[in-house]
Amino acid sequence: MTKAIVLGGSRGIGKAISDSLKSIEIDVFPASKKDIDTSDLNSVKKFLDIHYETDILILNTGGPEPKLFSTITENDWKKYHNQLFLGFVTILQNIKINQGGYIFLISSSVIKEPNTKLIISSAYRAAFTEVFKVLSKEYAEKNISCVNIAPGPFNTDRTRELIDNVKEFEKTLPMKRLGEPEEIGNFVKSIVENKIKYLSGVTINFDGANSNSIF
Amino acid sequence: MTKAIVLGGSRGIGKAISDSLKSIEIDVFPASKKDIDTSDLNSVKKFLDIHYETDILILNTGGPEPKLFSTITENDWKKYHNQLFLGFVTILQNIKINQGGYIFLISSSVIKEPNTKLIISSAYRAAFTEVFKVLSKEYAEKNISCVNIAPGPFNTDRTRELIDNVKEFEKTLPMKRLGEPEEIGNFVKSIVENKIKYLSGVTINFDGANSNSIF
Amino acid sequence: MTKAIVLGGSRGIGKAISDSLKSIEIDVFPASKKDIDTSDLNSVKKFLDIHYETDILILNTGGPEPKLFSTITENDWKKYHNQLFLGFVTILQNIKINQGGYIFLISSSVIKEPNTKLIISSAYRAAFTEVFKVLSKEYAEKNISCVNIAPGPFNTDRTRELIDNVKEFEKTLPMKRLGEPEEIGNFVKSIVENKIKYLSGVTINFDGANSNSIF
Amino acid sequence: MTKAIVLGGSRGIGKAISDSLKSIEIDVFPASKKDIDTSDLNSVKKFLDIHYETDILILNTGGPEPKLFSTITENDWKKYHNQLFLGFVTILQNIKINQGGYIFLISSSVIKEPNTKLIISSAYRAAFTEVFKVLSKEYAEKNISCVNIAPGPFNTDRTRELIDNVKEFEKTLPMKRLGEPEEIGNFVKSIVENKIKYLSGVTINFDGANSNSIF
Repeated sequence: MTKAIVLGGSRGIGKAISDSLKSIEIDVFPASKKDIDTSDLNSVKKFLDIHYETDILILNTGGPEPKLFSTITENDWKKYHNQLFLGFVTILQNIKINQGGYIFLISSSVIKEPNTKLIISSAYRAAFTEVFKVLSKEYAEKNISCVNIAPGPFNTDRTRELIDNVKEFEKTLPMKRLGEPEEIGNFVKSIVENKIKYLSGVTINFDGANSNSIF
Repeated sequence: MTKAIVLGGSRGIGKAISDSLKSIEIDVFPASKKDIDTSDLNSVKKFLDIHYETDILILNTGGPEPKLFSTITENDWKKYHNQLFLGFVTILQNIKINQGGYIFLISSSVIKEPNTKLIISSAYRAAFTEVFKVLSKEYAEKNISCVNIAPGPFNTDRTRELIDNVKEFEKTLPMKRLGEPEEIGNFVKSIVENKIKYLSGVTINFDGANSNSIF
Repeated sequence: MTKAIVLGGSRGIGKAISDSLKSIEIDVFPASKKDIDTSDLNSVKKFLDIHYETDILILNTGGPEPKLFSTITENDWKKYHNQLFLGFVTILQNIKINQGGYIFLISSSVIKEPNTKLIISSAYRAAFTEVFKVLSKEYAEKNISCVNIAPGPFNTDRTRELIDNVKEFEKTLPMKRLGEPEEIGNFVKSIVENKIKYLSGVTINFDGANSNSIF
Repeated sequence: MTKAIVLGGSRGIGKAISDSLKSIEIDVFPASKKDIDTSDLNSVKKFLDIHYETDILILNTGGPEPKLFSTITENDWKKYHNQLFLGFVTILQNIKINQGGYIFLISSSVIKEPNTKLIISSAYRAAFTEVFKVLSKEYAEKNISCVNIAPGPFNTDRTRELIDNVKEFEKTLPMKRLGEPEEIGNFVKSIVENKIKYLSGVTINFDGANSNSIF
């Protein structure tokens, strides 16, 4: 039976991906923060002792609180360096993805259009995007596809924390609504279900036509 | 019943999309060059007299023969300006896409990494990508999603014309093979089937990890 | 004596480049619309009969009036296809740039972040950017450098036509002002004066930190 | 008198920038590794005790040895996280750039086209590029320009360490040669000398037409 590990699988986009993969008879382990805290490399290593191989891996984690550059401390940087970058790196250095598998990275549209308040997230998610791009070529040799999904504003607890008045915010969006986590869940499911493999090494903005840059 | 028009729908990637949409009970019109020749604006207009509305539109057309810049004639430029740009523009200015519909553009990975021999294709497909990006924001208001798929090397007649020794060429690719048209066919089908709408205004490299640029 | 041809050299950014190149003893021909109308290929060819070689070439032309997509006519597309794309292509196919020379393209920041009202300009300037990128590699063999400058909002007659209330607009810009044509003039002059050659094949946003996309 | 601090100012591109700024009567402090080791945050803080303000700041540092992903240790990541990212962040959080000043970042072309062997450099330089982009908008309010120069292959000790046979390598480059540090030195000098301010918030590939991606 095909196995999947979904980090941050207990809520938001991660939960939607877990649910949709379960619907096609995949054996999903939806890892919550209790199972693995990517900001703590020891926690990551312990997790890897148990979960050392999989067919499908979803790299997904929340970002930091919005914070202005001048107020970000050395500890903040180091914590989120772990959470958004080094934890994922450690996983990829140690986990075995089975031949023909998939790795999906859930990053953020702020990697292409960085955001003042989300500067930590913009920085470290971009850093990991570089790593993921390089690795996609190596994984390709084992027929493993690497897809970086960069969500814009989605209907999650996180967005409701970040945005004061969601209703007003939605009016400013091209589609007049937030994205629904199920849309990403179904997207991931479809790629796996249809054995689409040639989609790899790509960053896919998933933002309801909200971004402005051409690529 | 949901209607789809697939330009270039009789061969290659267009045919694969037609076939996969048919498999989910969509009423597909796979337009061949007999039905519409996008390099001839009169042909485009005649086509639009009959096909003036649809739910799903696939903008897809072959590119020109490889030609070095110095040998491209004014007529070449004008022909492919029509075929790769103005024909599609004319369609979008005149066709009605129904609320909740989809437009898929099949462009090419040469828009991000332009190719000496495919300079005409690089230029006009990039031009149309700009138009498509701008329009994605307007279509969003009617819940119409615009997805630009930029294929790398695929297993089509076209590729066999362009590449001398396909077997050798495949060895140079990260996945050691060309993409299969069915992968794009299934990709398009899945988005429609799962009613994924928030994927819009995006250019998706579909190239088996072959490109080198980060975005 | 080093020769330069500056298209659109009688006003705005083109004039500023002409003036700054003259200040370093370059023999500048500032071509006005009387000398060459890039929207008319016959005019382009006549110009090339006289100006068939140069050391420095500045490809620079105004864009179209702002126009919404639905109102753009076939003639509009064709006119600006000539003016923003095919005229420049014809020049590069026919003019001799001397060994060690320079070609500067003055495009626009709308090629990276396309603009609804400037959709024609976004499209054809992007198309030419693709051509220019491909050619930069060929010109490199003759030590000719190709630099694409993509200006944001500058203090030109053009901007005053496009923007209703310039004073108010300026307050929305990161630098609280428009760019001054002399800044681009001096930039071009400096590269030539200092014989900087390794800057080539690049698109340089010149927009006072106004754009939002990372690259 | 205008003051400049040039990190990594004792060799390679840093030295060339130091020398060219000195030639226009700027009071340059070319910081060597003795003065500041950006991989050691204590060293950075000590440096900032003495050098707490400047008109011009050049953020420049060497990258790590080439290393394959699987062999990079946690300590490697942390060291270069400091050297390529957190050291620069700490500087910008603490140093005062005087009104009308400049910050130049010397990054690398690997941020746009990441490199397997230089994966650490690709990641952290991209991360800092995001920070630098966000900050360029804030600095703009004080008329401080932020320019990110992304060099391709240059004629430095570093390149000679990375490349086995430089002569052979040069033949593969569009200009058949490495870039000369003086070209970047003169570029920086020219911008300062001509008080060009509107060039800001931009990443400039400086690679002799070597890159393949359109932007």
